[in-house]
Amino acid sequence: MADGVQLRGIGLKDVRIDDRFWAPRMSTNREVTIPHVLDQCEATGRVQRFRAVAGKAEMPSGHFVAPDSDVYKCVEAAAYALVAEADPELEARLDVLITLIAEAQDVNGYLNTQFTGDGASNRWSNLRGPHELYCGGHLFEAAVAHHQATGKRTLLEVALRLADHIGDVFGPEGRVGAPGHPEIELALAKLYRLTRAEKYLRLAEFFIDQRGTEDSQLGGDAYLQDHAPIREQREILGHAVRAMYLYGGVADVYREMGEQALFETASRLWDNMAERKCYVTGGVGSRYRGEAFGDDYELPNDSAYAETCAAIGNVFWSWRMLTLTGEAKYADMMERALYNGFLSGVALDGRHFFYVNLLESRTPRSRRPWFPVPCCPTNVARMLASLPGYVYAVSEGSVWLNLFVAGRCSASVPGGGEVTLAVHTDYPWDGKVEIEVASGEGASFALYLRIPAWCGDVTLTAPSGIEHPEPTPGQYLPLSGTWSKGDIVALEMAMPVRTMRSHPHTGNVGRAALTRGPLVYCLEEADHPHLELFDLALPTDMQWTPTFHDDLLGGVVALHGAGALLDRSGWEHVLYREAGEIKPAEGPPVEMTAIPYCLWANRTPGRMRVWIPVRERL
Amino acid sequence: MADGVQLRGIGLKDVRIDDRFWAPRMSTNREVTIPHVLDQCEATGRVQRFRAVAGKAEMPSGHFVAPDSDVYKCVEAAAYALVAEADPELEARLDVLITLIAEAQDVNGYLNTQFTGDGASNRWSNLRGPHELYCGGHLFEAAVAHHQATGKRTLLEVALRLADHIGDVFGPEGRVGAPGHPEIELALAKLYRLTRAEKYLRLAEFFIDQRGTEDSQLGGDAYLQDHAPIREQREILGHAVRAMYLYGGVADVYREMGEQALFETASRLWDNMAERKCYVTGGVGSRYRGEAFGDDYELPNDSAYAETCAAIGNVFWSWRMLTLTGEAKYADMMERALYNGFLSGVALDGRHFFYVNLLESRTPRSRRPWFPVPCCPTNVARMLASLPGYVYAVSEGSVWLNLFVAGRCSASVPGGGEVTLAVHTDYPWDGKVEIEVASGEGASFALYLRIPAWCGDVTLTAPSGIEHPEPTPGQYLPLSGTWSKGDIVALEMAMPVRTMRSHPHTGNVGRAALTRGPLVYCLEEADHPHLELFDLALPTDMQWTPTFHDDLLGGVVALHGAGALLDRSGWEHVLYREAGEIKPAEGPPVEMTAIPYCLWANRTPGRMRVWIPVRERL
Repeated sequence: MADGVQLRGIGLKDVRIDDRFWAPRMSTNREVTIPHVLDQCEATGRVQRFRAVAGKAEMPSGHFVAPDSDVYKCVEAAAYALVAEADPELEARLDVLITLIAEAQDVNGYLNTQFTGDGASNRWSNLRGPHELYCGGHLFEAAVAHHQATGKRTLLEVALRLADHIGDVFGPEGRVGAPGHPEIELALAKLYRLTRAEKYLRLAEFFIDQRGTEDSQLGGDAYLQDHAPIREQREILGHAVRAMYLYGGVADVYREMGEQALFETASRLWDNMAERKCYVTGGVGSRYRGEAFGDDYELPNDSAYAETCAAIGNVFWSWRMLTLTGEAKYADMMERALYNGFLSGVALDGRHFFYVNLLESRTPRSRRPWFPVPCCPTNVARMLASLPGYVYAVSEGSVWLNLFVAGRCSASVPGGGEVTLAVHTDYPWDGKVEIEVASGEGASFALYLRIPAWCGDVTLTAPSGIEHPEPTPGQYLPLSGTWSKGDIVALEMAMPVRTMRSHPHTGNVGRAALTRGPLVYCLEEADHPHLELFDLALPTDMQWTPTFHDDLLGGVVALHGAGALLDRSGWEHVLYREAGEIKPAEGPPVEMTAIPYCLWANRTPGRMRVWIPVRERL
Repeated sequence: MADGVQLRGIGLKDVRIDDRFWAPRMSTNREVTIPHVLDQCEATGRVQRFRAVAGKAEMPSGHFVAPDSDVYKCVEAAAYALVAEADPELEARLDVLITLIAEAQDVNGYLNTQFTGDGASNRWSNLRGPHELYCGGHLFEAAVAHHQATGKRTLLEVALRLADHIGDVFGPEGRVGAPGHPEIELALAKLYRLTRAEKYLRLAEFFIDQRGTEDSQLGGDAYLQDHAPIREQREILGHAVRAMYLYGGVADVYREMGEQALFETASRLWDNMAERKCYVTGGVGSRYRGEAFGDDYELPNDSAYAETCAAIGNVFWSWRMLTLTGEAKYADMMERALYNGFLSGVALDGRHFFYVNLLESRTPRSRRPWFPVPCCPTNVARMLASLPGYVYAVSEGSVWLNLFVAGRCSASVPGGGEVTLAVHTDYPWDGKVEIEVASGEGASFALYLRIPAWCGDVTLTAPSGIEHPEPTPGQYLPLSGTWSKGDIVALEMAMPVRTMRSHPHTGNVGRAALTRGPLVYCLEEADHPHLELFDLALPTDMQWTPTFHDDLLGGVVALHGAGALLDRSGWEHVLYREAGEIKPAEGPPVEMTAIPYCLWANRTPGRMRVWIPVRERL
């Protein structure tokens, strides 16, 4: 087991979210998105495929990429939702589905609807393409979630049979190889944590060890993170979702086995991502080609890729790094991705999704209900349903508050007793957060509060007898002592509108992005119907007024200010010319409104921009 | 036939290029590139495929995209080269190849190595994917070139048989459909011009008319320019090479048939490209996805696509527009593409090629000898070999000088007698051009000189008795009168280094590109080995000294000046932060060197940048 801090998440059943930012999105997820993705899996033949393998239907025709994984991800999402709120109908729907999945399993434990009948002879013959191990991983995650939600072992038994079968096929005594699409590594770690059966952990480690070696069967392709053995990788490369899942698995194996070289790899690659290859939204994988990481600082806006699944994977990986270290930078990243690059992936209506998350849209774009490869909608469903699990954590003698979300949790603090914390806040709209010890009289523990790196000005009021150092942005603040019921820690983080610049090696020279608290803002055409959005510029002395609008986008703080229009004279029908810097036009300031980036494209489709030219006022 | 000006090109045999910019590249093309691409077609099985269809060999395995077209493009390139310089060995090599091609032709005229044997039943069944008509078009172009070069009809007869077969299959009385990849339209127009057989022109028109209709069989896909009927298209969309070839064909059909709506479409779409969707290098098709045009002003640098073939296609189309109008903007575009976005596609050694032409490279990149889809190398070969054909043109009573290339041409001026012009210049390194009437005593004609739009300051000296208006940049200047042998027109175009800005709606806010004459310059790591290239900035008062270096990159004017370094302090390990505009660092100016963009990546591989941050000097 790894040295150092060891945070553990708190089970979903012990956490409630009760705010006006996430709670409505989670309700929509439960009521709309989860049924929608389940229905889509049925309508597109993905469920039918299991029925067909079980001998109860015709195999649907058509081209599918890892179709089983979509069904498993639906089950996983639904299981998380069941924890938050009992839903016998949904639970019964899962039971039917699980029965079908079990019936589709081969007697030897094999399970994948793409390799049945005549295709069975091709099982495990191509680890690069067909995602067999990837689908297995999603089954394991679904099974653990379902078991934890319902106590049932129906899907878990299926998962264990497949895991055991894979263990029979692969390993030091069996076949070599690594999965073309990582996922099974972190999923095996979940199986291990549930069962404590070391064979699953060893198998995860085995797959990680194979990567980047001759034995991987992956051809040394950086797209698959196979360019070097894991422990020798120095730059984050290749397909972004694959990378997120892989290094999440590396973190898991390190956690359980403690090999320092694994942590160093994960830490080094995470830093490379965070410092050079991550959008301000937490989106990653900037390149359309290969859905991949680009070069350092290659972060185009209008041709961004930034797949929704990659932002989700960023949360998964950063969470794991957080639990290994207690370092706030990882939770800051989770927050950045959750409030921005992830949430932009789903419409307020819960049934439309972005696969690609542009930071600048020159033409109107709309989210879609489904995709030929629908990894994003099902990933959105499980991310939102499992969100409560990321808000708090515990470690020896400590409770951690990672995300400022109104609600409560009951935590069993190792070495510190039982405690219930209630969080009162209107975050992210307001920076005031009160943490109340709702139960746990006399418990002695340290409360670790994340002071976000974005936070410049912070004041803290703690109950008497509770000791703490000065709050430092970008670090967790420990508050230690013996707590009384009703104790309140009041944290007040100033939330000015910030004009953010981007590293001079990026393409954002001369432009700025607006943030307030954890939210990245954007300009959208819907708020500027009579202006050309791409003419808008930020004067360097621009003052913004944040205002909460009940009736806008489900309730939102918008930013209002007097901006400038660029002077476009001389540019009619001209694309390039010898000219000075483009200055603002003369004339009165223009009313500008910025909305949270995550909420764009929820009104009349139109243009959108995150990085806005900055100019001195005329 | 279309109204208005009608320029005609001058046959390759009547033009010589004899300068120190293009002539060495054309020699390399003849001596290295053409043999190289012919060898590659042999080595990769493309020639073997014809041998196999002729029953003389096994069909090579492997996946090919339009493999026949590569062979045809080699033949076309070699034919152009034969005009410039007799080469019995090369001519004999073509004869052998042509015999093989003829032997692979079906008795009914069909010819495509991808639809033979069992595959024959699928001929013409899928117009979207397999490029049958596209390959046919390349055969026609090769055949016309070969006939014009050698007088032989061997390949021409093959082409005519295929064209007649296609005419039997498609047309108002036959099958409907449009080619997924345009090319045959402009190729049929070439066949028509050679043979004057109207059926070929009608067939070209037929394919153009089908496009964007229910009958096209292309599904209305904008990627294939099938989103609307040709005459209703308003924005240039989709796969860039397809677009260039298609609208080139539209221009050809307009030229011969005179339907104004066709010209309006071509003109409107060309303007959209030139004014909103074209790199400063003349490269087009900015999007990796679909190798396609992006939205208006979507011109990313580090994720540019700008396929070499698209720049070549831009020359083809712009040339046709020029011949229809005599408008200098089309020749300006040809020049921009030829000297920059096209020429960057081929290394000085003539055997390495870029498929994608980035405007900013954050990691070292090298050209490659060949590609799985090798359209670019073979297109480079035919573009360079046919270059002399674009330098001059004639029209009723006039000779046109489109490109300033030292050399000479013998022109038969319609209504103006025979004349030989000699052009003396060191263009593009120097802006002084002398056009000498080397023969043609007493000929009466107008000499049209293009005054490039880039040209701010121009002086002209004409022989007495020759009349002309004031030169106006961006227009052709007509010099009219009766000429004497030895008459010299001296044009002197100032060639200052220009700091170009890009339209405020592009992503190049705060950055500038350097040009001198027709050349776009770039900063390359090879010239700044001890500096971080992405720290370099242009002070607004920067002075450049252009200097010719005999020993650099084959002889080149480089630009030297005292630039600035950006102050990167505070950005260590930070990607985003609240900060002011990034300013230059204190300290002495740094020596900066810019080289022509078209010559980057010919030395030690390293980073490269066209659009450079502009900053006031500290």
